[in-house]
Amino acid sequence: MSKKLTKRSEDYSKWYNELVVKADLAENSSVRGCMVIKPYGYAIWEKMQAQLDKMFKDTGHQNAYFPLFVPKSLFEAEEKNAEGFAKECAVVTHYRLKNDKENSGKLIVDENAKLEEELIVRPTSEAIIWNTYKNWIQSYRDLPILINQWANVVRWEMRTRLFLRTAEFLWQEGHTAHANKDEALREAELMNNIYSDFAQNFMGIPVIKGLKSESERFAGAEETYCIEALMQDGKALQAGTSHFLGQNFAKAFDVKFANKEGELDYVWATSWGVSTRLMGALIMTHSDDNGLVLPPKLAPIQVVVIPIYRSDEQLYEITKKITPILDELKRKNISVLFDNRDTHKPGYKFNEHEIKGVPIRIAVGPKDLENSTLEIFRRDKMKKELIDFDKIFDKIDFLLEDIQTNIFNKAQTFTNENIRIANSYDEFKSIIKNKGGFVSAHWDGSNETEEKIKKETKATIRCIPIDSHKEKGLCMISGKPSTQRVLFAKAY
Amino acid sequence: MSKKLTKRSEDYSKWYNELVVKADLAENSSVRGCMVIKPYGYAIWEKMQAQLDKMFKDTGHQNAYFPLFVPKSLFEAEEKNAEGFAKECAVVTHYRLKNDKENSGKLIVDENAKLEEELIVRPTSEAIIWNTYKNWIQSYRDLPILINQWANVVRWEMRTRLFLRTAEFLWQEGHTAHANKDEALREAELMNNIYSDFAQNFMGIPVIKGLKSESERFAGAEETYCIEALMQDGKALQAGTSHFLGQNFAKAFDVKFANKEGELDYVWATSWGVSTRLMGALIMTHSDDNGLVLPPKLAPIQVVVIPIYRSDEQLYEITKKITPILDELKRKNISVLFDNRDTHKPGYKFNEHEIKGVPIRIAVGPKDLENSTLEIFRRDKMKKELIDFDKIFDKIDFLLEDIQTNIFNKAQTFTNENIRIANSYDEFKSIIKNKGGFVSAHWDGSNETEEKIKKETKATIRCIPIDSHKEKGLCMISGKPSTQRVLFAKAY
Repeated sequence: MSKKLTKRSEDYSKWYNELVVKADLAENSSVRGCMVIKPYGYAIWEKMQAQLDKMFKDTGHQNAYFPLFVPKSLFEAEEKNAEGFAKECAVVTHYRLKNDKENSGKLIVDENAKLEEELIVRPTSEAIIWNTYKNWIQSYRDLPILINQWANVVRWEMRTRLFLRTAEFLWQEGHTAHANKDEALREAELMNNIYSDFAQNFMGIPVIKGLKSESERFAGAEETYCIEALMQDGKALQAGTSHFLGQNFAKAFDVKFANKEGELDYVWATSWGVSTRLMGALIMTHSDDNGLVLPPKLAPIQVVVIPIYRSDEQLYEITKKITPILDELKRKNISVLFDNRDTHKPGYKFNEHEIKGVPIRIAVGPKDLENSTLEIFRRDKMKKELIDFDKIFDKIDFLLEDIQTNIFNKAQTFTNENIRIANSYDEFKSIIKNKGGFVSAHWDGSNETEEKIKKETKATIRCIPIDSHKEKGLCMISGKPSTQRVLFAKAY
Repeated sequence: MSKKLTKRSEDYSKWYNELVVKADLAENSSVRGCMVIKPYGYAIWEKMQAQLDKMFKDTGHQNAYFPLFVPKSLFEAEEKNAEGFAKECAVVTHYRLKNDKENSGKLIVDENAKLEEELIVRPTSEAIIWNTYKNWIQSYRDLPILINQWANVVRWEMRTRLFLRTAEFLWQEGHTAHANKDEALREAELMNNIYSDFAQNFMGIPVIKGLKSESERFAGAEETYCIEALMQDGKALQAGTSHFLGQNFAKAFDVKFANKEGELDYVWATSWGVSTRLMGALIMTHSDDNGLVLPPKLAPIQVVVIPIYRSDEQLYEITKKITPILDELKRKNISVLFDNRDTHKPGYKFNEHEIKGVPIRIAVGPKDLENSTLEIFRRDKMKKELIDFDKIFDKIDFLLEDIQTNIFNKAQTFTNENIRIANSYDEFKSIIKNKGGFVSAHWDGSNETEEKIKKETKATIRCIPIDSHKEKGLCMISGKPSTQRVLFAKAY
């Protein structure tokens, strides 16, 4: 906790990397590109999981579990999907090690234990799941199937960053099967709306809902819904995606059903997921030069109470006064920590909980006992005030709500201020270069134009917004007609 | 649901395999030895997870997440552990596939993407975790570390069975670090007690707590605590283990700490785990020839309500009458399903919920509406009775408790009746051959004797019981002195 955090304005990327480690969220492991999620980071992820899981179940989904491995022959069945992931997958080729005769105590791969067919560590589970659904679906009575899986997946990324891009990451992946196209499309949109609701109302992250352009779609999808968020450095972050897969996987795995009229047809599919990448979005949306800022709804510790004392007797008196408060807060399901460690001084504790983003800090010393007061500090605004002891519960209730609202509004204002309209390519390039953020511009819908812009500016189409006003215009590059503006940005 | 289940007395093993599939718990996948856990089976596992997770957190443990892969050099660091798992591990050797030029649409391993060092898919995580703890521990102030991980692991078993033995399985693994031996030993025993409490009071499975003999210990442990349960076919099942690892992993990974006196010492360790294997124990302890029997505390559906009707109007009347009951049950956190599917007849539904082990079934027909009655059925005893409509809540409260108690008591009686004392090796062999169950016998503590018994009878030492009376005697094989009887059995 001793060394100061790099300032965002000095080096945003360095600030992020330092913060993840200093706030005790995660660290790099000795396995290339794989991270260790530390207890404090994992506790935030668990809160996210619990809320998402509830939202999935409330909309009729059930959890299940499918194998970690995908046999190569299944992996390659849906060609576009295979092509999208083949270049970055971990391949299991053997199932045994043996002693190295030339190096005592060392092990080597046993060449006699080579697998007949290689196994791919799942980068995503459409293939293994649709190969399973094939046996579950005969008639329309078996539909819909609404299943979610919490799992780890592996994508052999070359450049990795904690939470944002790791070789192994944790996620949930929903995989649903439907009797008709409309229902599948509605499901894909519903789940994107759930992600949006979750991001905004629980994580306090404003997002823009939209559709991906063809080149940015999930490999194997016919349509990809997404939510896009804007980080403080003006780069966008894709926070969740929900795919309408058409009948692609049903065709690849020959999954047909008899409809009510007894006719056979291929099943319609969706898949949707969010991952530990959301932790990166959480960190980069709210945090400041003092460390993490957490929305109260996801904070593992919502309130920390720090006793200020010089003698055991003072600590005893403070503890006596504070204990009923701690009990009452716990009864109200508010997560509270009484940090009475005698190994660290108050200043150290203040700093530690600040960098870890605990929303509310309460300090109590002997003087407070005399005056029946408490010092209460809100992390989002870095403001402290002295309050009457008997105002404590009202104040905490107020702050938990107010901090949640305040950090969302702050981020929403930032996002709104960083969506800029460009009416010419020069204007576009200037904004991307000098200001960052989202740029709203007309685009002719072609891959070529998109590719040219990406190559020249590094900005990509983040999404074709769903809720925005549909304004017709002319593509800033080709001059061809455009039916609505789309959002460009440089992205994580 | 149509075909009858094989009877236990006909073929216990076949009964088990059929039941797992018919009760919709799990099925084999297209990946050798890996299973698909279906929504109903996964819902039971989720209930188990939630309860265990609470018990871990209540005793000061936190969750975290460590990488799926273990680099070979770390894997081999603790020699006994490495030796124990080297013969059955999945090895990742490459990180890319490429198009097969000779077979369009097919993929092959890209030999240019060979890893410099092979990665082992974790069969257990001591190695990767202790390599991480090394950086977390400098002084006694950093201890204890009390961490648990929920994860998937892979052990390349040759003969697999759903839940009981699968190449990939889900589990939790606790990994703790302590400043002294006593504390680590207490932790290992505490966690074994938690497993015992969980097995008995939530799963309704009676267990015997004990220590493993040296040959049955976890590879790398100095002492292995365990809980052993007896299945209905007289075979034992190891339901959970908790290991005192001494300083073995600290030495292998050079993890030292400065104690209060400033002296450096190696850290003491424990690890402990239970897995989806517990699902197998659950199934085999309680179920009968009609299907699954579930303890109410783990049943995804505790009460199913089936309307008996011939017309839409009747269904409407039944629904009107039942709805307030459903609402009240949900309010009481009782999981209830109103099975009003119009695609299936009542008989089919009765059968389905019977085989799936729903503890309480309520049937309501037009006559019940007239008479203000309900038919209530308890799955454990396969008994139904007619009750007054206004007794419904009391009856359900009573049954949920009574079924939980009854199935535990039934299993406890069975276990007690199947612990037999043998005072000679002939007697021992006869019991193992003709009756099965646990055999309590004197053993001289040597590997040779244990090995001889295993070879000749297939029975192994399941545990050296902790809570049993310590009766001195003579080993049934060698005649050498024995300090207490130990429990033998054939085991899963």
